[in-house]
Amino acid sequence: MTVIDIPAGSPFGLDNLPYGVFSTPGTEPRVGVRVGESVVDLAVALRDEVFARPSLNAFMAQGHERWVQVRRQIAELVSGDVPDAAVHPVADVTTHLPIEVADYVDFYASEHHAANLGRLFRPNAEPLMPNWKHLPVGYHGRSGTVVVSGTDIVRPSGQRKSPDEDAPTFGPCRRLDIEAELGFIVGTGSDLGSTVPAADFATRVFGVVLVNDWSARDIQAWEYVPLGPFLGKSFATSISAWVVPLLALEAARVPVPDQEPKPLPYLRETEPWGLDIDLAVSWNGHEVSRPPYREMYWSPAQMLAHLTVNGATSRTGDLYASGTISGPEKDQRGAFIELTWGGKEPVEVGAEERTFLQDGDEVTITATAPGPNGSRIGFGEVAGRILPASG
Amino acid sequence: MTVIDIPAGSPFGLDNLPYGVFSTPGTEPRVGVRVGESVVDLAVALRDEVFARPSLNAFMAQGHERWVQVRRQIAELVSGDVPDAAVHPVADVTTHLPIEVADYVDFYASEHHAANLGRLFRPNAEPLMPNWKHLPVGYHGRSGTVVVSGTDIVRPSGQRKSPDEDAPTFGPCRRLDIEAELGFIVGTGSDLGSTVPAADFATRVFGVVLVNDWSARDIQAWEYVPLGPFLGKSFATSISAWVVPLLALEAARVPVPDQEPKPLPYLRETEPWGLDIDLAVSWNGHEVSRPPYREMYWSPAQMLAHLTVNGATSRTGDLYASGTISGPEKDQRGAFIELTWGGKEPVEVGAEERTFLQDGDEVTITATAPGPNGSRIGFGEVAGRILPASG
Repeated sequence: MTVIDIPAGSPFGLDNLPYGVFSTPGTEPRVGVRVGESVVDLAVALRDEVFARPSLNAFMAQGHERWVQVRRQIAELVSGDVPDAAVHPVADVTTHLPIEVADYVDFYASEHHAANLGRLFRPNAEPLMPNWKHLPVGYHGRSGTVVVSGTDIVRPSGQRKSPDEDAPTFGPCRRLDIEAELGFIVGTGSDLGSTVPAADFATRVFGVVLVNDWSARDIQAWEYVPLGPFLGKSFATSISAWVVPLLALEAARVPVPDQEPKPLPYLRETEPWGLDIDLAVSWNGHEVSRPPYREMYWSPAQMLAHLTVNGATSRTGDLYASGTISGPEKDQRGAFIELTWGGKEPVEVGAEERTFLQDGDEVTITATAPGPNGSRIGFGEVAGRILPASG
Repeated sequence: MTVIDIPAGSPFGLDNLPYGVFSTPGTEPRVGVRVGESVVDLAVALRDEVFARPSLNAFMAQGHERWVQVRRQIAELVSGDVPDAAVHPVADVTTHLPIEVADYVDFYASEHHAANLGRLFRPNAEPLMPNWKHLPVGYHGRSGTVVVSGTDIVRPSGQRKSPDEDAPTFGPCRRLDIEAELGFIVGTGSDLGSTVPAADFATRVFGVVLVNDWSARDIQAWEYVPLGPFLGKSFATSISAWVVPLLALEAARVPVPDQEPKPLPYLRETEPWGLDIDLAVSWNGHEVSRPPYREMYWSPAQMLAHLTVNGATSRTGDLYASGTISGPEKDQRGAFIELTWGGKEPVEVGAEERTFLQDGDEVTITATAPGPNGSRIGFGEVAGRILPASG
């Protein structure tokens, strides 16, 4: 038996207990929980076949009561002796995509981000569109290209046309960007023709991940009118390997900023689901931004209510992301197009200057949230390195 | 043993042999093929477990050579004696969603449709956007709400704002519409970071279905700038129950209309994949439109090449639809918003007049294509009835 060592101040203490899917050399991917610098194999430790699967979906589908019960079981288990065979140093495991993604939706819920993009793209108009404060604007992305942190990102190629060109040309993206976001994972779905009220958020949503919504700004700019982003986004979306249970984020809950005009009744929060989560964006190891999630205009409970208000099905494994998280300050912007003001104001990345991503660049997004008793809840990281365009 | 009767001129003759998923009372959904007015249970007839699954995905994943081989096997089988236990009258079976949908994409490939909507929505501007003739414009839809023909459609509710209103209101959709489309089902996928050239279309795409992309025009109009359609489409997308193999459509192949400007090299067709398919749209049993697929500007081979040119993964079960099929004539328009010119010119539906869909209305879309030797290939139908908004 092993007693798991949890270093003082670890972001993966007993208040966190995030779930992931891992393997060790020669074994199949299965569900584990991260504790300190260890991963506990839940199929072995809890002797439950639901954790022997290569994704969290079967466990998530068991529902909220079961999530509460298993979380209690795990907290008890890792506070005492754990069978040796169930414990692996985190350095010895490979992490995999933790969920089988059903539908992927991306919102646009930061007022600072939406207004900055408005100013950049439509300098002579109101920065926010007329609908923006009435509903959480969003769109569907490609679920098949959601990848786990650490997956290399091949620079996409596609059509792009600068304003000074007569016709589009084909080639590697010249304005490759990131978007620092949070993603919310639906644990239990809802039927076609029914809705999920904002009040049901906490019983429906299983957990939270970090998201990097890689964006090819030149491809996006040429293609997106009138049906929205498509190939400018669909080449890859990275998520963190560890899913922080919503149950671990009680101490992080804060009200959303004042919403004026008052949202329509179906979008009103019955309890606060703003989240006081601090993100940090590192570019080749140098921190360039600290986006504050607490500044987001729309809460994830409001996003889920909106997503389903037309009767659309929700399913176990649905992933919906917040959209770029940007705060009011320049060093709180979660996309490089904002941080460098459309590429006109380079940022210092160590001894070099950057506007958009170069081949070989690596971006790592991390985050922490307040836990109970002054602890911090860590989200680990979502990281990716840019490989040159193929072909 | 049974000899299957195929009525003369049947659209489900030996040249068609479409696949579906069916069940009989008290049995599990499994794969069958439609022949005349019969359904042949392939798990029983071919004694192959891959057909005992509740979707076509496992069979489709076996690849093009296998599709060719099984099609030959089935043609031989149903030309002779078939075991009694494998044959069911089509009237006795329930059809199910034939595929497990991976990602769902909807294109916008009819020049007539795009130009009509441009004239309706932006009367003082060029009808087509600058990008439209350079690339097949498309977006991702919600794969979780793809339903099989015959599923009732609950009128969606949502936010909508008329130009004369100061603020949006919430309520049932007031401009519920259809879009008559074809859908293409990917049988074998491609890896992240690789592309699918237009020339590989026929080995990647397994078959074709009819699609009704139900559209809430008032919800869509208010929400869609700048990220595209979302809740105005995501409440339901219906597809036909029988998947016509691409292998059955050789005689339907025609060149696409002249493309000027000439597309970029990755979008050029190496062989013609326009399709001479005639659709018909019936509203409460009265035919109101006959959209001709041969008029589509972009071919499905070009759509697949575009979809993957940025390195996006494609997967078994990906469904991509053509967008509304409209021809140059008024009675060839595949959406009611075009047919009634934004609701200003009602159409006669039997003894009644209609602009958009009323509760209780039923829409049925059918199609046929030329087969070899003067035969016709039938697509069956995609049908749905509108139920009142819930709540």
